[in-house]
Amino acid sequence: MEKYTGKSVLKGIAIGRIYWYEKQDYQVVRLEAEDKEAEKKRFAKAVETAREQLTGLYEETLERVGEDHAMIFDIHKMMLEDDDYLEAVNEVLEEGLNAEYAVEMAQNQFAEMFAAMDDEYMKARAADIKDVSKRVIRILAGVAEDGILTDEPVIVVADDLTPSETVKMDKNKILAFVTVRGSSNSHTAILARSMNLPALVNTGMAAGKELNGKVGVVDGFAGEFLIEPDTEVLDEMIHRKNQWVADLEALEQLKGKDNVTGDGRRIDIFANIGKVEDAQGALEADAGGIGLFRSEFLYLGRGNFPTEEEQFLSYKAVLEKMGEKKVVIRTLDIGADKKVDYFNLDEEENPALGYRAIRICLDRPEIFITQLRAIFRASAYGRAAIMFPMVVSTAEVRRIKEIVEQVKEELSTEGYPVKDVELGIMIETPAAALISDELAKEVDFFSIGTNDLTQYTLAVDRQNQKLESTCDTHHPAVLKLIEMTVKNGHKEGIWVGICGELAADTDLTETFLNMGVDELSVSASSVLKVRKAVRDI
Amino acid sequence: MEKYTGKSVLKGIAIGRIYWYEKQDYQVVRLEAEDKEAEKKRFAKAVETAREQLTGLYEETLERVGEDHAMIFDIHKMMLEDDDYLEAVNEVLEEGLNAEYAVEMAQNQFAEMFAAMDDEYMKARAADIKDVSKRVIRILAGVAEDGILTDEPVIVVADDLTPSETVKMDKNKILAFVTVRGSSNSHTAILARSMNLPALVNTGMAAGKELNGKVGVVDGFAGEFLIEPDTEVLDEMIHRKNQWVADLEALEQLKGKDNVTGDGRRIDIFANIGKVEDAQGALEADAGGIGLFRSEFLYLGRGNFPTEEEQFLSYKAVLEKMGEKKVVIRTLDIGADKKVDYFNLDEEENPALGYRAIRICLDRPEIFITQLRAIFRASAYGRAAIMFPMVVSTAEVRRIKEIVEQVKEELSTEGYPVKDVELGIMIETPAAALISDELAKEVDFFSIGTNDLTQYTLAVDRQNQKLESTCDTHHPAVLKLIEMTVKNGHKEGIWVGICGELAADTDLTETFLNMGVDELSVSASSVLKVRKAVRDI
Repeated sequence: MEKYTGKSVLKGIAIGRIYWYEKQDYQVVRLEAEDKEAEKKRFAKAVETAREQLTGLYEETLERVGEDHAMIFDIHKMMLEDDDYLEAVNEVLEEGLNAEYAVEMAQNQFAEMFAAMDDEYMKARAADIKDVSKRVIRILAGVAEDGILTDEPVIVVADDLTPSETVKMDKNKILAFVTVRGSSNSHTAILARSMNLPALVNTGMAAGKELNGKVGVVDGFAGEFLIEPDTEVLDEMIHRKNQWVADLEALEQLKGKDNVTGDGRRIDIFANIGKVEDAQGALEADAGGIGLFRSEFLYLGRGNFPTEEEQFLSYKAVLEKMGEKKVVIRTLDIGADKKVDYFNLDEEENPALGYRAIRICLDRPEIFITQLRAIFRASAYGRAAIMFPMVVSTAEVRRIKEIVEQVKEELSTEGYPVKDVELGIMIETPAAALISDELAKEVDFFSIGTNDLTQYTLAVDRQNQKLESTCDTHHPAVLKLIEMTVKNGHKEGIWVGICGELAADTDLTETFLNMGVDELSVSASSVLKVRKAVRDI
Repeated sequence: MEKYTGKSVLKGIAIGRIYWYEKQDYQVVRLEAEDKEAEKKRFAKAVETAREQLTGLYEETLERVGEDHAMIFDIHKMMLEDDDYLEAVNEVLEEGLNAEYAVEMAQNQFAEMFAAMDDEYMKARAADIKDVSKRVIRILAGVAEDGILTDEPVIVVADDLTPSETVKMDKNKILAFVTVRGSSNSHTAILARSMNLPALVNTGMAAGKELNGKVGVVDGFAGEFLIEPDTEVLDEMIHRKNQWVADLEALEQLKGKDNVTGDGRRIDIFANIGKVEDAQGALEADAGGIGLFRSEFLYLGRGNFPTEEEQFLSYKAVLEKMGEKKVVIRTLDIGADKKVDYFNLDEEENPALGYRAIRICLDRPEIFITQLRAIFRASAYGRAAIMFPMVVSTAEVRRIKEIVEQVKEELSTEGYPVKDVELGIMIETPAAALISDELAKEVDFFSIGTNDLTQYTLAVDRQNQKLESTCDTHHPAVLKLIEMTVKNGHKEGIWVGICGELAADTDLTETFLNMGVDELSVSASSVLKVRKAVRDI
């Protein structure tokens, strides 16, 4: 038995034969072109064909997994229209070289440029420029696209998968993905997740065609990939897989049921979402509302500030979708690990302890005001609430409220209907939890962000792999701060929720109920799991 | 009136005429040497002369300010013996060029190399390689060293000052230093501090000989440099200077007195030190002991781990010097902003929330054990206590105590006399303060590190200039954590001190006394100031 560990993209178990997906990478050769102009035409035609293929992929993906994921092929099309890219190809063609070589040169140049960028989103675009360039090269060389040819469904193992490779695969033929490289943020990982397939990325294993036909087990819970497991292990995994499938089915039965304990105590279970399309998943999971609508998606992966109108349309879409259900919109939490070039943020020694979130908003109110205007305008279309991240003092809250008042007055003057919406703050610094008695007098609700709260309380960067053993997520100090916050909130008659990862930790559900927590906001995929935990009490 | 701000090196006020210190920088010209061998001899002779000068400077500084500061000239001598440096010069000489040019080339090459290093200590060595190379060039060119020629004492303004320029100056002729560039960590700043002269560095001002003879005021409290102040301002500054001198004299009168309030409450006032030589200053300031002996100096600015013997001798020296007075040695706090190459620490996204201090010690016990062995061996020579930084859990404390027991047994077996020393922990994470009730059962004392405690509680990197307004050092959350820690410590009968910057904040002295804090550990220069604050209550 061999065992490899990787980053799990979806919690689930798959058992089946392994299919080694080998890329028939076309080897580009540098040649003198016989006719420079003919070569340019050949390139233009290949681009045209590529664009047609991409349109097809876009439509196919749109139908299968939705616009959000289909978008990547639109981006690929845009790359093929980019003047700088086309110029880079043409420069090589001008030297009288062959089109395959010219495209490869342009690909390398742009991929390197993207890879060197600070912005994580832009970095990830290096894979896209390679994907689209390879497409053009394949078309130029008349090489067919790689596909999977099997009868039974298989576990696909590959060095890495491009978005187009992933989406081209027939879902019915695939049990799981395992890649040697890749990150859990890649489009491939996102697509795998949306196809609801267990997947491990970045296993770093030495893989090759000798794997073909061997029995494999992908354990998305443990992040492990087993090859030719011993009989005992295999039996155990089959048992766990059946259990997992049965649990999934049992959870489905809980849709439409109440979040209520055996002795009649109720708690709200809301969903966290990160973009407009996620609202659908929250509804499907039967969440009671949106407890955390992260607004960063509006700012990330672009070159300029989103306009008030753009933001308004996004907030409105989610509010309308959720109907009577509450939607808690968190104002922007840029900074720390979320960098955006056009904010022109300085490099910081410790970004997690830096200029981020509300600190930026209060320092640069023009950004803040645009967002608040958009939210208040959208608030007419549903049941919005607003919460502010990274607050540490009452002075900050008072300043926020002043700006909110100013925005409401402005909108009123301009003739917009202005609703009163609940204003709350994230409790995610030890300071905020410790002065929650004072803060509770200023706001309508608290939402405890346990990820950052734990990070600051323990002085541990949760992304830092060397500190995994130090980072005790059940640390008594964190639980004390949560309890203190709930008590202080209730003393002033406001509701208190939890929206960090801890909210979905069912080992703590009873503890939270005992503390009197009013709401837990978790990922859509955890809503029913937490409902079950509540009902089992 | 002109006003500039800079980084203050010593709190004090100086008023007097400005002397613009202009470097007669010898302009090196690239020439063909007539006789390659003769040029090499000329270089060798200049190095010899430079070494003699440096020996003289070493002895002069040793006498005036002590070995610690004299050491820099020994380092300069070592640079002149460095094979790589000499080879770099010789390479240019081999090409038949003049020695001045060869030295300048080597200087530039090495200064760049040092400047590019990650280690702050090594970075600062770029100034030293320039200083010593300029010395050799001046000798080669027969140019005299720059000096200051004035009758009355002056405020010396310069672009930057090298250590040798600073130490060559006649202290009786100088009221203060102001430099355009330079950092508060430079040897120059350290020397200025040891000469007890107000100094501002890094003012970034445009300065030149037009300043000569103008009246200047250096305000080391505000970090301001005023030129030709208005009469009113000047009067005010004269008044403040007299007040400052009077205060200093009044503080001197407090030596030998008790730290006791009007109503009879006592508190210990200890000193923080960062190296062996500082013990003298602590005694001179009449500190009751050493509340924080930072051990990092043993590890920084070198290429390998300090041996047990080296460490033993350092701890022993301080313990013997302090006699009956307690010395609390803190085990190493490397990591965060203190990087040491030979520890091979990974780059971290948020070093302040990273792999540092006790986390390294528990992960790499061989480093920890060497330090503990040295401390326990030295403990026979005075009154040592040990404290451990960055603790967040009782599990860590238990592991520390296991290792301590193991070290004591080993030493015992080897025949060393082993004393029982007090074991304490730093309370510098919110987690530690919040579980101080549990931690108090495990240790003999707590020492609250307010700098880190504030940083984590408010999620604010104190070095981050953009967050100055957010970083409220009197934040009620921090004061609550301090009060909680003192109460929990006393409940278990252990003493509780404060060793962060807040300990010297006399606005809080009464608050700390009311909380029942047992000890404040402050810089030697603040001991009498805090004593005064206590006695004034």
